[in-house]
Amino acid sequence: MRRIAESTIRRLSLYLRFLEEFEEEGTATVSSEELAGRGATTAAQVRKDLSLFGSFGKRGMGYRVHELATKLRDILGLGRTYDVAVIGAGKVGSALAQYGGFAARGFHVRWVYDADPAKLGLAWDGLRVRDVSRMEDDLHDHGPDIAILATPGDVAQSLADRLVSLGVRAILNFAPVQLAVPADVAVKNVNMAIELETLSYALRHG
Amino acid sequence: MRRIAESTIRRLSLYLRFLEEFEEEGTATVSSEELAGRGATTAAQVRKDLSLFGSFGKRGMGYRVHELATKLRDILGLGRTYDVAVIGAGKVGSALAQYGGFAARGFHVRWVYDADPAKLGLAWDGLRVRDVSRMEDDLHDHGPDIAILATPGDVAQSLADRLVSLGVRAILNFAPVQLAVPADVAVKNVNMAIELETLSYALRHG
Repeated sequence: MRRIAESTIRRLSLYLRFLEEFEEEGTATVSSEELAGRGATTAAQVRKDLSLFGSFGKRGMGYRVHELATKLRDILGLGRTYDVAVIGAGKVGSALAQYGGFAARGFHVRWVYDADPAKLGLAWDGLRVRDVSRMEDDLHDHGPDIAILATPGDVAQSLADRLVSLGVRAILNFAPVQLAVPADVAVKNVNMAIELETLSYALRHG
Repeated sequence: MRRIAESTIRRLSLYLRFLEEFEEEGTATVSSEELAGRGATTAAQVRKDLSLFGSFGKRGMGYRVHELATKLRDILGLGRTYDVAVIGAGKVGSALAQYGGFAARGFHVRWVYDADPAKLGLAWDGLRVRDVSRMEDDLHDHGPDIAILATPGDVAQSLADRLVSLGVRAILNFAPVQLAVPADVAVKNVNMAIELETLSYALRHG
């Protein structure tokens, strides 16, 4: 499959959410116009995005909601569950460890790690904060599919190295550093200040 | 100015961060290769992104670090400060209200609102949680430039309407709903499950 832009993947995630809403409302088929109308995009963009993954829907007939939702879940890798470790039990890490929206999508936070003795043993929703110095002992048999790195910047790279050694191939990185990882490891950086800068840009340019 | 893709804006934010690092290291000029090397992009992409905003740097000479950083700050609307209100003092709202990375960029969280009587009066870093029913009284004279909406989905639209009535023209939306706002209001949706789905997609297509 050719390389797909991340912006396209994100729109697929949105289309899936809209399709699930249509399904809940009992709608069996939708047009690209209706799908576009739920979000901030156009019917032409919907058709273009979906055409990258094959032929869906029939001209004038629209898309079958259940079928397309199933297909999008498959494309997005949501046909399975993922075990997730949160590294860093600070404000961001604790909010993420308790975030209700993950499990509904098959992302199950199984472990939370921190280095701060004051945090060890804290439990959120039954999830106990574990000692990061014991991470390799805990995880050498069965490790996370995805790690969420929510630590200060100065320790992020060494933690990423350890996670990669444990077989982790996907990292959601909240630490304010660019991680160096092998080519087969996916890293997605999240930076709340950059989110705000898309808004300051919009305000600046009206 | 023609419409610029959000992915471009986000890269400009990254280039600015890299330039600031170069400046701290005492580097006066950088090439597009060096700038690309800090992040996950190419020299050609750097040149293309910057060319959208005018002519920077000289062929074979590279970019002057301080000059380009200043220009990028201007493009991104970072030549001023922004007053920010956080609506919703739950786990996400409290993490955002206390997030250290905002003030460094000129985004100052001045207000936190919630409707839950148990949360009112809580204070984080001197910032007291205020009663959202009094939001109009508090803010009619001087309101936020940007609102961060971190509430459950069912109350998000009515709160967005109230914020727009108060003159807010930019909303960072963590609520899991698509907000309907006037055309002159910028909304940026943040959804942590969608961030994870860019990783499940990567794992699926390996």
